[in-house]
Amino acid sequence: MRGLMQDSPLTVDSIFRHVEQHYGDGTIVTNNPGGVTRATYAEWAQRTRKLGGVLDTLGIGADGRVGTFGWNSQRHLELYFAAPCTGRVLHTLNVRLFPEQLTYIANHAEDEVVFVDRTVLPLLWPLIDTMKTVKHVVVMDDGGDNEIPDDSRVLDYETLLADAQPVEFAVTDEWRAASMCYTSGTTGNPKGVVYSHRSTFLHTMGVMAPNAFGLGINDVAMPVVPMFHANAWGIAQAAPAAGSSLVMPGALMQPEALAKLIVEEGVTFTAGVPTIWQGVLPHLAGRPHKLRDIGCGGSAVPKALSEAYREQVGIPILQAWGMTETHPVASSGVLPKRYQDADDETKAAQRARAGIPFLGVEARIVDSDTLEPQPWDDKATGELQVRGPWCAQDYYNPDAGVELTTADGWMKTGDVAAMDAFGSIRIADRTKDLIKSGGEWISSVDLENAIMSHPKVKEAAVVGIPHPKWDERPLACVVLNAGEEATEEEILEHLKPLVAKWWMPDAVEFIDEVPKTSVGKFSKKDLRAKFAEYELKS
Amino acid sequence: MRGLMQDSPLTVDSIFRHVEQHYGDGTIVTNNPGGVTRATYAEWAQRTRKLGGVLDTLGIGADGRVGTFGWNSQRHLELYFAAPCTGRVLHTLNVRLFPEQLTYIANHAEDEVVFVDRTVLPLLWPLIDTMKTVKHVVVMDDGGDNEIPDDSRVLDYETLLADAQPVEFAVTDEWRAASMCYTSGTTGNPKGVVYSHRSTFLHTMGVMAPNAFGLGINDVAMPVVPMFHANAWGIAQAAPAAGSSLVMPGALMQPEALAKLIVEEGVTFTAGVPTIWQGVLPHLAGRPHKLRDIGCGGSAVPKALSEAYREQVGIPILQAWGMTETHPVASSGVLPKRYQDADDETKAAQRARAGIPFLGVEARIVDSDTLEPQPWDDKATGELQVRGPWCAQDYYNPDAGVELTTADGWMKTGDVAAMDAFGSIRIADRTKDLIKSGGEWISSVDLENAIMSHPKVKEAAVVGIPHPKWDERPLACVVLNAGEEATEEEILEHLKPLVAKWWMPDAVEFIDEVPKTSVGKFSKKDLRAKFAEYELKS
Repeated sequence: MRGLMQDSPLTVDSIFRHVEQHYGDGTIVTNNPGGVTRATYAEWAQRTRKLGGVLDTLGIGADGRVGTFGWNSQRHLELYFAAPCTGRVLHTLNVRLFPEQLTYIANHAEDEVVFVDRTVLPLLWPLIDTMKTVKHVVVMDDGGDNEIPDDSRVLDYETLLADAQPVEFAVTDEWRAASMCYTSGTTGNPKGVVYSHRSTFLHTMGVMAPNAFGLGINDVAMPVVPMFHANAWGIAQAAPAAGSSLVMPGALMQPEALAKLIVEEGVTFTAGVPTIWQGVLPHLAGRPHKLRDIGCGGSAVPKALSEAYREQVGIPILQAWGMTETHPVASSGVLPKRYQDADDETKAAQRARAGIPFLGVEARIVDSDTLEPQPWDDKATGELQVRGPWCAQDYYNPDAGVELTTADGWMKTGDVAAMDAFGSIRIADRTKDLIKSGGEWISSVDLENAIMSHPKVKEAAVVGIPHPKWDERPLACVVLNAGEEATEEEILEHLKPLVAKWWMPDAVEFIDEVPKTSVGKFSKKDLRAKFAEYELKS
Repeated sequence: MRGLMQDSPLTVDSIFRHVEQHYGDGTIVTNNPGGVTRATYAEWAQRTRKLGGVLDTLGIGADGRVGTFGWNSQRHLELYFAAPCTGRVLHTLNVRLFPEQLTYIANHAEDEVVFVDRTVLPLLWPLIDTMKTVKHVVVMDDGGDNEIPDDSRVLDYETLLADAQPVEFAVTDEWRAASMCYTSGTTGNPKGVVYSHRSTFLHTMGVMAPNAFGLGINDVAMPVVPMFHANAWGIAQAAPAAGSSLVMPGALMQPEALAKLIVEEGVTFTAGVPTIWQGVLPHLAGRPHKLRDIGCGGSAVPKALSEAYREQVGIPILQAWGMTETHPVASSGVLPKRYQDADDETKAAQRARAGIPFLGVEARIVDSDTLEPQPWDDKATGELQVRGPWCAQDYYNPDAGVELTTADGWMKTGDVAAMDAFGSIRIADRTKDLIKSGGEWISSVDLENAIMSHPKVKEAAVVGIPHPKWDERPLACVVLNAGEEATEEEILEHLKPLVAKWWMPDAVEFIDEVPKTSVGKFSKKDLRAKFAEYELKS
């Protein structure tokens, strides 16, 4: 027996219409180098419909890929909706990728146009002849004085918009592609994830819920996590969909500028990677603000950082977990009721977890070879695998041999995790970052957190170094706070009560900075390369 | 181009697994006449799986209708999931319907079994031979001393459960029917709405959102709105799905008992029809509580009631709007940002609106004959029509001529509404309750609200009385607060500054009680019958 409900598709344009019809007086503030711009959602909606007209005029194909190369801004949000709402596919290019990767990705996705912020135009323009399918480069002038090439392919965003007619949106197939995002794995070519209208709608509802980001009509949301990467964690869709106002940091990603926006614009919710919050802390501590939650993810949030925020800003950081392949947010460390009266230490440990999957996402941990489920005792670890309506099934035209999905239909995450009795996820490591010592596994993430709890330590990354007897042994790469000095002995002494004896790093190297990936995560690949010839003592 | 995301169905059993896996220590408290029972979601989940086994043992068909006839309780929640999660169809029978309606509905739905609370067994058992497809009556002993018939069809819930084996749940088609609910229109036979797994999942996410009920892991939710009607406004699914604990009032629906539960069980969110809150107010005023929101719907919330709650309980009532055909919740009067600093009067008027549709639901007002859209100026009225994934398409095997959907795919609500520039809905009346006077329409709801703002008035209902000259003229039926006295002149004097002159009722009749429908709404049909021979003066 079939239900007798409307077959009403879950689409991005139904989100758009919701915003346009009901939240016209919500605002979008963008902090461009060229000055702050402010618009209402009503103005944004009208511009977005005209942008749909621009895509028609430019002759972009019915499901043509619309590339973007820019910061978080109102214009980027116009693209986020105009492309999918006209049936086309938004393709966000990461401004921090290497030139070869950008070329590969634009060609692989077959982008027909790239919309680029003037502040990052010099990163894109030199590559334009290598991007074989790109017919137009539309410059969004966010300030600065980067030269705009005199080339027939180069167009101006505002000029196009001024000349355009607004269009009607009508996507009727919820399975249609809405957007693409490439993830730069540590090996092989970047891999493309293709989100559908359905998955975008459901992810939007998922991150809006109180157990996730809890966005409502009285929020002011500032996505620091970039729109050029992993969908800005869904905030670019969920904030308008909830009627929350938006604050966009534009190219001005300096900690001072972010703290200023939080304070002056009355931001209630913001989100970004740990490195950002590390930098913002001293600029926010002690200042008045309206923040109720800071979402953090991309890497594990060091407990010390979350606790520093609790003490100095008045709110703990909310850990979230996910990946490009999960749209990207799949779970959060929202504190379960049973810990409401626990001591600070216990609460901090809970908040640092990837936590409980959102309604709609299911998780399991398994032996990655046999797919044998591992017990949920918070000790046993296994590969974290997920399934649900906003988990990817396949990559877009992947290289031979790349398999995202198991034979029984679960998405492989490449993360190694434990789960407690309530199914709360604790990420132990990336599969490839585990250190194999004497047939047992050492979690580099756990070691890093223990080292980072030392008051003199700013950042720490641990990698495995080949060892003749044990296979691999841990090397700790430590960045000290400015002006501090410390010895290897001091660090190891600090670790003794915190980790098992056989986990103790064989050596500590003090470095100036942990190398980061294009999305701000620790680049273990670069660290391993740097210490490729390292010889452990004894 | 198609998205490359998992084709993961939106089902009630995915909600069930989420609760079972992650919120095992959440609790369900039921206030039965036989005593308070408490269980964890872990215990509930295990019992629900065994209840699935019971349905197998009883030989209920693969999509057999599982009738229920009972109050809000843990057992009812077990049925809410066991039936759909085994592919069967939950069918809630309204304990307040007339015997003939119950017989009609059970036969029309072809219920194979009815699960009945012992406290309401005497309402069901005399009808059992008229319910042609019902093979079993399973008694849920919630206390009291109603005799349990010695009949081979009668079984005991706990005995069946004790003997049953837990089963696996695996519904894979999101379009499959999950549950049914009949709505007793004022004319014609009751009409059945068939909810799908998909619509149930999406409605659950919809009511969970911050702009709706905002349910999260730290909430304690008490649905006073009955599970036997309109899905308990989705709270029976959304509270467990959010990890909120549940408090169930059972058969003890007296105002004192409800207030006691709110105070003693730390209820943070509750919901029910206005009449309930009218009764609860004196028992709650001035007592300590943890309520953050009270949802109200079914009828328009009188402004005076909402304001009394704001003043005496510390929180205003949240108006919500919907109907059985919308699962049932489609919009809420959550206060938009632009009114945060408005005066109390303006805020009260906003909160009394049906408000903004939830993400996923679209609304329009049209001329019901021509489907011509009416302007959103808060003045023009038209039939409210909605569409979206949790709006019904058709009734179940309806009588000839019953059409729910317009030619262009919108659901007809039968409500007359205005919408403001932001698409906020203000219900003017039910189409059939409008009073036609001299070719113009008078809103009975507006008149009632104006009368109810008189301090001596407890309730007021206005109906149209035939009039030789004007076609119809309003008659006000007024219930005074206990111990009060008032005259017709006093009431009319109060109305003068509040309504247009031609809206003034031609007569005021003082009555002891406004007749109510089975779901607690004013029964205009009964009032019209009562005053069928009424003769207006002049």
